[in-house]
Amino acid sequence: MPAKKLSTTKWTLSPDRCFDVNPTQRKVARQIYGTVKDLPIVSPHGHVTPALLADPNARFGSPADLFIIPDHYVFRMLYSQGINLAELGVPTRDGPVEGADHRKIWQVFAENFYLFRGTPTGLWLADELTTVFGVDEKLNGRTAMAIYDHLESELAKPEFSPRALFKRFNIEVLCTTDAASDTLEGHKSLKAEGWTNIRPTFRPDAVINLEAENWDQNIQKLAEVSGYDIDTYATFSQALQERRAYFKMMGATSTDQAAITPFTERLSGDKAEKIFSRALRGKLHEDDAARFMAHMIIEMARMSVEDGLVMQLHAGSYRNHNARLFKVYGADKGADIPVTVEWTHNLYNLLNEFGNDPRLTLILFGLDESTYSRELAPLAGHYPSVLLGPPWWFHDSVNGMTRYLDQVMETAGLYNTAGFNDDTRAFVSIPARHDVWRRVTSNWLAGLVGKGLIDLDDALEMAQETSYRLAKKAYNLA
Amino acid sequence: MPAKKLSTTKWTLSPDRCFDVNPTQRKVARQIYGTVKDLPIVSPHGHVTPALLADPNARFGSPADLFIIPDHYVFRMLYSQGINLAELGVPTRDGPVEGADHRKIWQVFAENFYLFRGTPTGLWLADELTTVFGVDEKLNGRTAMAIYDHLESELAKPEFSPRALFKRFNIEVLCTTDAASDTLEGHKSLKAEGWTNIRPTFRPDAVINLEAENWDQNIQKLAEVSGYDIDTYATFSQALQERRAYFKMMGATSTDQAAITPFTERLSGDKAEKIFSRALRGKLHEDDAARFMAHMIIEMARMSVEDGLVMQLHAGSYRNHNARLFKVYGADKGADIPVTVEWTHNLYNLLNEFGNDPRLTLILFGLDESTYSRELAPLAGHYPSVLLGPPWWFHDSVNGMTRYLDQVMETAGLYNTAGFNDDTRAFVSIPARHDVWRRVTSNWLAGLVGKGLIDLDDALEMAQETSYRLAKKAYNLA
Amino acid sequence: MPAKKLSTTKWTLSPDRCFDVNPTQRKVARQIYGTVKDLPIVSPHGHVTPALLADPNARFGSPADLFIIPDHYVFRMLYSQGINLAELGVPTRDGPVEGADHRKIWQVFAENFYLFRGTPTGLWLADELTTVFGVDEKLNGRTAMAIYDHLESELAKPEFSPRALFKRFNIEVLCTTDAASDTLEGHKSLKAEGWTNIRPTFRPDAVINLEAENWDQNIQKLAEVSGYDIDTYATFSQALQERRAYFKMMGATSTDQAAITPFTERLSGDKAEKIFSRALRGKLHEDDAARFMAHMIIEMARMSVEDGLVMQLHAGSYRNHNARLFKVYGADKGADIPVTVEWTHNLYNLLNEFGNDPRLTLILFGLDESTYSRELAPLAGHYPSVLLGPPWWFHDSVNGMTRYLDQVMETAGLYNTAGFNDDTRAFVSIPARHDVWRRVTSNWLAGLVGKGLIDLDDALEMAQETSYRLAKKAYNLA
Repeated sequence: MPAKKLSTTKWTLSPDRCFDVNPTQRKVARQIYGTVKDLPIVSPHGHVTPALLADPNARFGSPADLFIIPDHYVFRMLYSQGINLAELGVPTRDGPVEGADHRKIWQVFAENFYLFRGTPTGLWLADELTTVFGVDEKLNGRTAMAIYDHLESELAKPEFSPRALFKRFNIEVLCTTDAASDTLEGHKSLKAEGWTNIRPTFRPDAVINLEAENWDQNIQKLAEVSGYDIDTYATFSQALQERRAYFKMMGATSTDQAAITPFTERLSGDKAEKIFSRALRGKLHEDDAARFMAHMIIEMARMSVEDGLVMQLHAGSYRNHNARLFKVYGADKGADIPVTVEWTHNLYNLLNEFGNDPRLTLILFGLDESTYSRELAPLAGHYPSVLLGPPWWFHDSVNGMTRYLDQVMETAGLYNTAGFNDDTRAFVSIPARHDVWRRVTSNWLAGLVGKGLIDLDDALEMAQETSYRLAKKAYNLA
Repeated sequence: MPAKKLSTTKWTLSPDRCFDVNPTQRKVARQIYGTVKDLPIVSPHGHVTPALLADPNARFGSPADLFIIPDHYVFRMLYSQGINLAELGVPTRDGPVEGADHRKIWQVFAENFYLFRGTPTGLWLADELTTVFGVDEKLNGRTAMAIYDHLESELAKPEFSPRALFKRFNIEVLCTTDAASDTLEGHKSLKAEGWTNIRPTFRPDAVINLEAENWDQNIQKLAEVSGYDIDTYATFSQALQERRAYFKMMGATSTDQAAITPFTERLSGDKAEKIFSRALRGKLHEDDAARFMAHMIIEMARMSVEDGLVMQLHAGSYRNHNARLFKVYGADKGADIPVTVEWTHNLYNLLNEFGNDPRLTLILFGLDESTYSRELAPLAGHYPSVLLGPPWWFHDSVNGMTRYLDQVMETAGLYNTAGFNDDTRAFVSIPARHDVWRRVTSNWLAGLVGKGLIDLDDALEMAQETSYRLAKKAYNLA
Repeated sequence: MPAKKLSTTKWTLSPDRCFDVNPTQRKVARQIYGTVKDLPIVSPHGHVTPALLADPNARFGSPADLFIIPDHYVFRMLYSQGINLAELGVPTRDGPVEGADHRKIWQVFAENFYLFRGTPTGLWLADELTTVFGVDEKLNGRTAMAIYDHLESELAKPEFSPRALFKRFNIEVLCTTDAASDTLEGHKSLKAEGWTNIRPTFRPDAVINLEAENWDQNIQKLAEVSGYDIDTYATFSQALQERRAYFKMMGATSTDQAAITPFTERLSGDKAEKIFSRALRGKLHEDDAARFMAHMIIEMARMSVEDGLVMQLHAGSYRNHNARLFKVYGADKGADIPVTVEWTHNLYNLLNEFGNDPRLTLILFGLDESTYSRELAPLAGHYPSVLLGPPWWFHDSVNGMTRYLDQVMETAGLYNTAGFNDDTRAFVSIPARHDVWRRVTSNWLAGLVGKGLIDLDDALEMAQETSYRLAKKAYNLA
């Protein structure tokens, strides 16, 4: 930080943050947390680009490049208060903003940093700025430029390169998310260098969602990389399986899919061919895309049974709700809004085909918290194949985690959950996110001990599981 | 109170009520609350009749008139336990109960006051009786008559007139709710006397809901007051805009609407004309009313963009669920039951037309708490036009507020909410209701401080916002 | 326990379990709990087989017979972690597993007992093992056989017969659940012996659900026991009424029904006849079963108005979700998964016919917690006939009860609820389940006292109500 202090109050985070105010519970929480806080980070699902680590010379850019411009968690809050995305340097579909003044962007962000009070993004940013970068004054309009200078100078140092931070963060394994047609160049370089702890994840959304933007180009690309001439459903299916095998060879242990609804339905081969053929001809009937998706979710389960890749399913986000913004700026601009999700009826067909199969691991993620206790926990608490993923997206927060633990654990039991994953594209936020999970779960376990529902031995073991082991086990990363 | 004490235990409310039991959190809650408890009351949405304040000689009537007969929060609980509305003096559609014995009504109420244990109504009543009226013995069958005597004698005093209490309550501004066809006589008198802090709110439900009781009479009335011959949709729309202008001139800063669902859909001018014409002829097709409402919600947003009135939307109450009761007693008899509400799909059309427009402020209220974290907070946390109203109706309670704060704030952020409004027709309950909000939010902030998630400086500022400033800003009452 | 200690740590449950960690609240909780913990148990709804008590010589069998083989709460958790039901001795449709090794079953259970950490089943089992059977070492793979030996020797003693435990458990009244066509042999014997505190409950699901397994055989059986030739809807309805009268004569005070949705709709007599006739001929149209159920729910209310039996309705469980398991093992194998439930629209027809009738008591149970505050509490807080049953099934847990109290009580008020019922088929778990309820409600009341929302006098009275009196009153067991 700059030599001249702007304020006498240092910006520090409480070492007891996220713990209950009650001193008895807090003491036990501290004790439990002490046994997990330094465990290596297992990050089995997220959106960090492999290029960041594949290129030894990669750097994070300016403070605005690092913290604001690419992070829709950050700029959607500023946007909601009337600040234009242009003012924040957010690139449009036409490309990055030419000559954007990153200091000006940072100033706007700092002046509005109070908007993040009490939010998870605010908590992560505070942790990143103070713990990772040693900022010691609260970010606001007055301190903005001094902090910018400080960050800029730190980011220039080799110890703040992505690879240096990867090491400092003690990340044992990091899984990225990659399109089915991706050639995994970054992963190839990493492999060539001998890295084995950065792994791809197979994500076929762009080709199995027949209404995806540029679906035909995506299919074309898939055809090229797979070597299959994709002119039928059968060749499409073969191409997918070939790509899964390739991803697996490159280190992948899992796949991922997003769907607005987890509706599943098996189509006859003939029906699947007809729909796929209409898609190729650009002549989809009304519910073709929905039925094809429903079929492909089951197909992904079938392929998982065959090749052993763990299957992830994220359901319930209405993508790009703000059509005007989407037209100018494209996807992932903070305008994805959750909807209700129905799991019990919708997964029936998939689970009755593969739910009892010991070869399948299906990890479910949702944004409709009303399903935690009603549907998800009972499903995970019965089907051998089903695990529940951690609280997702908006619910990856102190209260979101607390609700999840409250509503899921009594019915599903801890051992039918998949530990934590950070699901982030903001690499520098990874330790902060895992730390919140470790704190909140330690505090939850301390509460169970305090209420006499488990003993401390149980709590200490459960903390190891939920901070570290369950994720490794669920994703076959052991 | 009567000279002769009926009991040795005084009825007092804890000065720390609503605060967490933990002494550390309680201490901070007390400190925060101390900075907001005496702030003026901003009441931007409610159902107090302006006549109560427009007439300097208005009085509250008997204790039964004040606390029981007009308050469906009170008599619905008694009704649920088998007490007839007739026994409580509740007027039927034919008018007030002739010769009702208000002492007898009070006796029944007092004997059953235990039913309100742990309910918000019980808490408000206790606060009103002790704080406003100085009752110092617990209300029950034994103390009923002595308390009745005391209240009767207090109510006769000039310092218990509505205007005197308005002053004593330190109400900075009070907004009423008024039908689109209302001539605002009360508001006219108040304005003539120089009052500027009692404002109307434009509520067009009775004319935009084509299935409203007496819709044709309502339209007739609207035609009369607006001077428009309403024989087409176009003239109907003009009449509405004229009335909005009149309300604005009379001090209104906002509108309000209720809908069972927030479904929005733009109709073509031709389609709107056809439906409106069928309504005038009493020949509605099956979904005419629903589609017209969907269209008019967007139209209200358009008019707000043009005239600057803040738009409120209350969704999800199934009105008059008890058809037999409705037939005899009419509306607002405690038989309105909430239903699920879907916001993400339903508001899509409105938000894509006006959601990014800086001229629109749309405040959303719902009774389906499962939408807090799933839909409402993400919408408010993205769209510049959307704010969330405070917990509504059944959820205007200690736990209801706590759930709201828990489920909304992390995603929406405090600054995308609209502070508090009491939404009451029970004028005397206004301070009690605001006090519960100030207590619960102070306690929530103290919890965030205690858990190390914000610092005390932040908490003190946030308390000012949520107790006072946000409501003024949201409703343009600054 | 065996003389030789396997460990130095004794397995004891905290006397303060389920109470808040805060010492102030805990102290009050302890005080309140002290006044209710020894109250007699009123168990107005459950699934204990009357045979267990009707036969003075009945015994519980082996530890595996008692704790594992018949309890789907237990084996569904083991199944979810990949343990086959066969390995656990769970009988298939073809009958019990021949020559199952109960020690081996117990060993598997003990090795996996950690899966129940933090679950209600884990808490009940710990209470049963330590409190009822005096086990004093934690159950795990190492202690399994010693504990098995101990249990086996205890179970052989006369003081561990069902009747002895019934007395020891201080059960004032126990209601069983019995098919409409049941001849109530067990109840007859008990009556003949002079028992008056074990009562049947009339459950007509197997005959009113036209799609029930073996519906025609069920109807045949109903015809036989009622003496009616059931060849029309009219005779069917008469047979039901005759059976209700018989159950009432045998001590029943209530009926019970399960439905996936509480949809209600009155059919004309002609329509009902037509559907019933199609059912008899095995030629159901698509929604015949759903509409007939909707009609019969109203009919059950009508009959209740006439004969005074309290009506229970359990809605929202998708039974036998795992079709493969169902085919081999039959019903009640831990594969019932909840779905969303809508009450407001669905109960409209029933409530408008009978909701205001003082002769009807309708107790509602659901698994969709999002309806607690949205629909159920408002319905119970208005309609004189409606009471809310306690948290059901998955939600019969510390957190489930806490959510129920949080979300129901402010709107419904305590007095519109029906106290507790254990709903169990595991006889030995009855005291443990009632104890959790008494602890959690005592703690809830202590919280209200601590937060200054009720006083201790209120709390003590409310504790009596919810632990004992409300259930007796709701079920007419006074």
